[in-house]
Amino acid sequence: MLKLFNKDYHSPGTPPGTLASDTIDDSAPLNFLTLDYSEDSLVEIDNALPSDIEAKLESNTATWFQVQGSPNADWMQQYGSLFKLHPLVQEDILNGGQRPKLESYDDQLFIVMNLPDDVDGVITINQLYLCWHKHYLISFYTGDKDTFSPLLKRLRTSGTRSRRSGLDYLVYLIMDLAIDQAFPVLETLGLGLETLEEKLLQEPDQSVLHEIHEAKRQIILLRRGIWPQREVLNQLIRDENAWVEDPTQVYLRDCYDHTIQVMDLLESYRDMSASLLDLYLSSASMRMNEIMRLLTIFTTIFIPLTFIAGVYGMNFAGESQSPWAMPELRWSFGYPFVWGLFIVIAIGMLIFFRRKRWL
Amino acid sequence: MLKLFNKDYHSPGTPPGTLASDTIDDSAPLNFLTLDYSEDSLVEIDNALPSDIEAKLESNTATWFQVQGSPNADWMQQYGSLFKLHPLVQEDILNGGQRPKLESYDDQLFIVMNLPDDVDGVITINQLYLCWHKHYLISFYTGDKDTFSPLLKRLRTSGTRSRRSGLDYLVYLIMDLAIDQAFPVLETLGLGLETLEEKLLQEPDQSVLHEIHEAKRQIILLRRGIWPQREVLNQLIRDENAWVEDPTQVYLRDCYDHTIQVMDLLESYRDMSASLLDLYLSSASMRMNEIMRLLTIFTTIFIPLTFIAGVYGMNFAGESQSPWAMPELRWSFGYPFVWGLFIVIAIGMLIFFRRKRWL
Amino acid sequence: MLKLFNKDYHSPGTPPGTLASDTIDDSAPLNFLTLDYSEDSLVEIDNALPSDIEAKLESNTATWFQVQGSPNADWMQQYGSLFKLHPLVQEDILNGGQRPKLESYDDQLFIVMNLPDDVDGVITINQLYLCWHKHYLISFYTGDKDTFSPLLKRLRTSGTRSRRSGLDYLVYLIMDLAIDQAFPVLETLGLGLETLEEKLLQEPDQSVLHEIHEAKRQIILLRRGIWPQREVLNQLIRDENAWVEDPTQVYLRDCYDHTIQVMDLLESYRDMSASLLDLYLSSASMRMNEIMRLLTIFTTIFIPLTFIAGVYGMNFAGESQSPWAMPELRWSFGYPFVWGLFIVIAIGMLIFFRRKRWL
Amino acid sequence: MLKLFNKDYHSPGTPPGTLASDTIDDSAPLNFLTLDYSEDSLVEIDNALPSDIEAKLESNTATWFQVQGSPNADWMQQYGSLFKLHPLVQEDILNGGQRPKLESYDDQLFIVMNLPDDVDGVITINQLYLCWHKHYLISFYTGDKDTFSPLLKRLRTSGTRSRRSGLDYLVYLIMDLAIDQAFPVLETLGLGLETLEEKLLQEPDQSVLHEIHEAKRQIILLRRGIWPQREVLNQLIRDENAWVEDPTQVYLRDCYDHTIQVMDLLESYRDMSASLLDLYLSSASMRMNEIMRLLTIFTTIFIPLTFIAGVYGMNFAGESQSPWAMPELRWSFGYPFVWGLFIVIAIGMLIFFRRKRWL
Amino acid sequence: MLKLFNKDYHSPGTPPGTLASDTIDDSAPLNFLTLDYSEDSLVEIDNALPSDIEAKLESNTATWFQVQGSPNADWMQQYGSLFKLHPLVQEDILNGGQRPKLESYDDQLFIVMNLPDDVDGVITINQLYLCWHKHYLISFYTGDKDTFSPLLKRLRTSGTRSRRSGLDYLVYLIMDLAIDQAFPVLETLGLGLETLEEKLLQEPDQSVLHEIHEAKRQIILLRRGIWPQREVLNQLIRDENAWVEDPTQVYLRDCYDHTIQVMDLLESYRDMSASLLDLYLSSASMRMNEIMRLLTIFTTIFIPLTFIAGVYGMNFAGESQSPWAMPELRWSFGYPFVWGLFIVIAIGMLIFFRRKRWL
Repeated sequence: MLKLFNKDYHSPGTPPGTLASDTIDDSAPLNFLTLDYSEDSLVEIDNALPSDIEAKLESNTATWFQVQGSPNADWMQQYGSLFKLHPLVQEDILNGGQRPKLESYDDQLFIVMNLPDDVDGVITINQLYLCWHKHYLISFYTGDKDTFSPLLKRLRTSGTRSRRSGLDYLVYLIMDLAIDQAFPVLETLGLGLETLEEKLLQEPDQSVLHEIHEAKRQIILLRRGIWPQREVLNQLIRDENAWVEDPTQVYLRDCYDHTIQVMDLLESYRDMSASLLDLYLSSASMRMNEIMRLLTIFTTIFIPLTFIAGVYGMNFAGESQSPWAMPELRWSFGYPFVWGLFIVIAIGMLIFFRRKRWL
Repeated sequence: MLKLFNKDYHSPGTPPGTLASDTIDDSAPLNFLTLDYSEDSLVEIDNALPSDIEAKLESNTATWFQVQGSPNADWMQQYGSLFKLHPLVQEDILNGGQRPKLESYDDQLFIVMNLPDDVDGVITINQLYLCWHKHYLISFYTGDKDTFSPLLKRLRTSGTRSRRSGLDYLVYLIMDLAIDQAFPVLETLGLGLETLEEKLLQEPDQSVLHEIHEAKRQIILLRRGIWPQREVLNQLIRDENAWVEDPTQVYLRDCYDHTIQVMDLLESYRDMSASLLDLYLSSASMRMNEIMRLLTIFTTIFIPLTFIAGVYGMNFAGESQSPWAMPELRWSFGYPFVWGLFIVIAIGMLIFFRRKRWL
Repeated sequence: MLKLFNKDYHSPGTPPGTLASDTIDDSAPLNFLTLDYSEDSLVEIDNALPSDIEAKLESNTATWFQVQGSPNADWMQQYGSLFKLHPLVQEDILNGGQRPKLESYDDQLFIVMNLPDDVDGVITINQLYLCWHKHYLISFYTGDKDTFSPLLKRLRTSGTRSRRSGLDYLVYLIMDLAIDQAFPVLETLGLGLETLEEKLLQEPDQSVLHEIHEAKRQIILLRRGIWPQREVLNQLIRDENAWVEDPTQVYLRDCYDHTIQVMDLLESYRDMSASLLDLYLSSASMRMNEIMRLLTIFTTIFIPLTFIAGVYGMNFAGESQSPWAMPELRWSFGYPFVWGLFIVIAIGMLIFFRRKRWL
Repeated sequence: MLKLFNKDYHSPGTPPGTLASDTIDDSAPLNFLTLDYSEDSLVEIDNALPSDIEAKLESNTATWFQVQGSPNADWMQQYGSLFKLHPLVQEDILNGGQRPKLESYDDQLFIVMNLPDDVDGVITINQLYLCWHKHYLISFYTGDKDTFSPLLKRLRTSGTRSRRSGLDYLVYLIMDLAIDQAFPVLETLGLGLETLEEKLLQEPDQSVLHEIHEAKRQIILLRRGIWPQREVLNQLIRDENAWVEDPTQVYLRDCYDHTIQVMDLLESYRDMSASLLDLYLSSASMRMNEIMRLLTIFTTIFIPLTFIAGVYGMNFAGESQSPWAMPELRWSFGYPFVWGLFIVIAIGMLIFFRRKRWL
Repeated sequence: MLKLFNKDYHSPGTPPGTLASDTIDDSAPLNFLTLDYSEDSLVEIDNALPSDIEAKLESNTATWFQVQGSPNADWMQQYGSLFKLHPLVQEDILNGGQRPKLESYDDQLFIVMNLPDDVDGVITINQLYLCWHKHYLISFYTGDKDTFSPLLKRLRTSGTRSRRSGLDYLVYLIMDLAIDQAFPVLETLGLGLETLEEKLLQEPDQSVLHEIHEAKRQIILLRRGIWPQREVLNQLIRDENAWVEDPTQVYLRDCYDHTIQVMDLLESYRDMSASLLDLYLSSASMRMNEIMRLLTIFTTIFIPLTFIAGVYGMNFAGESQSPWAMPELRWSFGYPFVWGLFIVIAIGMLIFFRRKRWL
């Protein structure tokens, strides 16, 4: 489940760039794949050795180091300097829970993206870190293994645009995939809201309340996670150092357009969930009022009847033989008369309530 | 009905520009009309052949290729490259559910607009795509066939301003028509809200609640669909490449003014629907309170009377002949006295309630 | 009453600048006054002939053509070209329901202003159109005849600043008058809100709810009508073509200050009306709760008493002569004892409720 | 009390700069003090004659004309031209109810500030007008006499910074004083809100509702009055004509910082008052629900008991000697048995309610 | 506890830079530590004498004067001029309750930061003042003694980056620590909200209401305290006078990123607390409605039964021997018949309520 507070942080006053090893869960095995490609060639190395890596960093071909899983502090100390990652970048990756951002260091760009994922109705957000040097790109991703397999497949096919283009196109492809991850999640969320709406209009029950709250919670947290990505793309498009070349700019703008679509959807979901809550509370209150009104009217009709029955249960006639003491008791038709009284009163009240439009 | 999630999207990681044929409903027949016009001449071709098209693309006369209906992936593959449509443009058109936008590619402008339509009280949004090359314009529209017939009629009449002017004026005419489509829809919506308001002030019933919710839903989704069009027009007016020539600029500004009017209307509708919901809930709650108060007061008056009747129904006098045992039972005027008591209590309570302003 | 949807529009696809004669109510007679003035001279013509007009257009003296009432399409066709009004301007004037705006055409400024008016508590908004050419000004106004009479009076008095200054000062005077029209309406609205507030704090009744809704409605629609005027004045002040000369700029800034004052007032009215609604609903709910609590407590006290009376109304003692069968009935002081019980229970409950602070 | 509509205005169409004498309350006596000072000298004149004034205007020493009380139209006509006040300035001062603003005329700055004041818990807003010519300053203030006495005291002491510095420092001192006037008012308001909060958390009563509304009203109107002062200070700091010299700029920025502090306080007061209202309504509703639930449960327990007592009050056994007719009446332990029934039912229901967590 | 109004201020009209000694609590002892350091050397002086200080101010090594505790007016008068603190700075430090800000005086920067602290669940905000001259830095902090000990430890270790770098890096370290102080507080707050949420979804009680209010209060006041820090960092990063050198800029941007993370968290907490309040009120209202409905239905079922029992308690049969007078009383199976009636009515009503879905 998405957490309200989602950051691992060092205690205030820790030197910047500190790599705390204890906050890392070492259990998940690390998948470390190296892809060195150009239009004609493709070299793939699993768990490359430092010497392999150094060679690739120098080469002019595009190289993608793809790290799947959570690196620990040891790994980072070993490879971080190899890849020339800025200490703050290393710290951010180990800590996790970053805000999507684009940070430019001397000769590298550091990009943080959020990839929402929906596993059996439970929404999670996984972070993707991209460290982009001119000739190589390192990506860190802790989410599902298969997320990037469509990209790998295309890179492995020679002649595709991905192979022909440089790293900037690869970065675009990764970011596009990252942003598009939101669509299936939003589709599920949207369908969920519409199902809720239908349920509300037909036969609402109390679980609806918790479901609306759950939807609102998810929208609040997705919004927090996704909103800053718009700014990341904007910065990348306007970047003065031209990390992204002109032909790829067009694609990035398309990507930017998608982030705005995502935010538009989230905004309308938020409005809709507020409207659904209003509708639910109003409906429930109406239904309750309806029931209470009818029951109260029913009770009210019996109140005077019970009073009259009580009157004729008084013991006046038994003791004093006074003619003033409930003469009806001695009438032949006293009892039917009282029943007539009952019926007249009941019908009279029903007519009155109907006239007042209370029934 | 308008959907909360209205986008067809490829699974994340699909290459940009992929044309998925399976998401397309082939059943709707495609209407493909070519209009090649200048001040003196007009050539109209139904379902032009590729060779016809190629000739028109080169010519200096203005050419409008109007596609009515949903093209499928095959059609797009065949004609897309003929028209030199950018792969992302082709993908956007096939996917649908785009956000209104203006995207500038090297030698073409791609414009997405949303045309709301109201068919028997059900509001739908149809998308219009304009691909504008210097000498020709391709429009795609899946909505009603007759939407553009007033424009066609004017183009077919020689001597009109439309015939005398270039493609930029045609684009203005189409966008103006697209934006003005919102007015009848908004008029219906506005009248609906005012009818609701009158109903609320006179005799509200529970259906009002659902109607207000429905109105809010439509306003939320229309807002999402129409809001970005303001930016589209703004971009077109400020465009540095001067796609739109000076004489047409004046008209576009008028058009821009219309989008703002539409947003103003939607904003005030939103405020009004919120106010109507407040009014409805408050009225309903007041009415309910009124009823409950009156019924409760009625019941309350009988409570002590019934108690007294109960008292005189106790069997004390029958058993013990003690003079303390309900002497009233043996009074000649005991019974009338009790009735007097009843009446005094009831009237006393009525006066009390009236003084307290509870009645 | 102010309408939610207040625009006459042509069906989408109508050519721009179309003058539809059927949407015009011809019944209102048109008042067409021409004022040609300079510091020393003043010529006034009622219902000027085309020839008169043409002469005035050329002259260097300032000329104000003041049209009072709704021109119809015929009138517009006849005079529109005479005054060189842009077709879009003509269409806007005939259609009405424009958003306040300042539109600059080649050699003319077109200004739309909204003048709120309060006729016997019913707020209306009348539109004022100013078409300003360098040497003459045409104004269209459908509202009350006497609105501009203070200006006319000043123009007719020689030596006033109005006579000494050019058309830009006249435009300022008209716009100042237009904006100041809002103050009496806002004063009435403000006093109305304060009266409502007092009523609320003293003795609220249900009509208050409808009055608050009515106030909110008026504030929403006045806001929509007046808000854009701020932008109009801003544009006029910053205008690069220097339509307004320096000495008049000071006055226009004063005028701009007034539009902001109007918006400030409307904002605080909106906040206040929301606060009043809160107060009303809370008060009503408190009052209702108060009543229900007291009535329920009253009822609750009688419940056990009635039960006890019922117990002694049971017929056990009459049948079985068992000593266990309600021996109190045979006590001498049984009846007073039961009354003692009644009183003890009632007082005990009162004390209990008082202790619990329920009373 | 603060008014929703706080402006005196002329009827629309009145010439700009009109001084209406009838809107002025002449009863308040005018205090007119002239201070002409330099580092070494100080001349103080009460109710200076025109000739005194003219001399001072020419002199190079700093001169402060301090007007305390409401000038009337006659006064303004006499002195306005003497001081070379712009007609719009004169009109604004006489009318009152201005929005805080800084208006720059050719050779003068006109500044309007709002000074909130709290007299015995009633908040009022007094206006301060500063007309600043290069060598002299005229201030108009209708509020409390002693407001400016700390400044006067410092000016009367030779050697103070105030005496050493020019008019710009005096203007800073006056504006600083004006802005700091808000702090005691805000402190009282803040303490009031916290007292309200404590009261709410301990023993809320209905007066709290009106107090919260009163606080909201004051916050709305204070906000309207104070918010624009931020812009006034901003304009003064950025002024290109360098009315304020560099050494004083530092102080003005401090002053600007204070206006933002005031707004921050008002914003959090607004949020807090909204939260208090929520808390109050929720608490009251909870408390009411609590009472109603307990009373209803109490009543509900007696309902079946009373029914059973009613059953044994039926007269079946008396008439028919049928063995089916209420045999319990003839049992020796019938009456104790019924009491046992009463107790079992009551305890059973209590247990049931407790299990359901209704008690 | 955080106060709504948290400022000590002089009475309006006090000269700027006044140091009021009476507003200072002298009881807290002052801790005054001087650290003079360069890469190779470190000199530490406790409670330095004026002569020590003067020597350090001139030196080229970085010097940090760290004041822990509240200085009083005497202290400030003595040391303020020694450190060349601007009078307004001295006043601000003594008064406290400042808004986070960065103020640039001729040759010094004055920075105010807010450090939230959570002591046993009570959130407080302590202020940190930094007065930064080119070669020395004075910090004032009234909060916990140990806050800066991690920094001191690092400065005392030779060879650390802190020792190698200049004052700008020290300022970064202090501000980073100041901002990161918010994370533990926010984590506690976030966990608190999630605990509240769980409690709400399982078994809410009335204390939840006060807890939500308390959380909202803390969020409002934390927001007020922390929000302006974003602007402070922004100003420091964009500062044209290059107080911060390039290598430190990267770190400051990281710091800026943290302030935005803090605000993001606070925003989502605010949304969440609003949603929790909605959820609580709705749940409580649902629960209450549920109880009232069931109790009312229970009562309603007994109403007609009690009435019938009352009918057969009437004394008709006893007096008149009329055959119309309640013949059932004389039937052998009259009593069982009435019980049958009771049961039929009760079951009938249960079925009716079930059909209506009221049960």
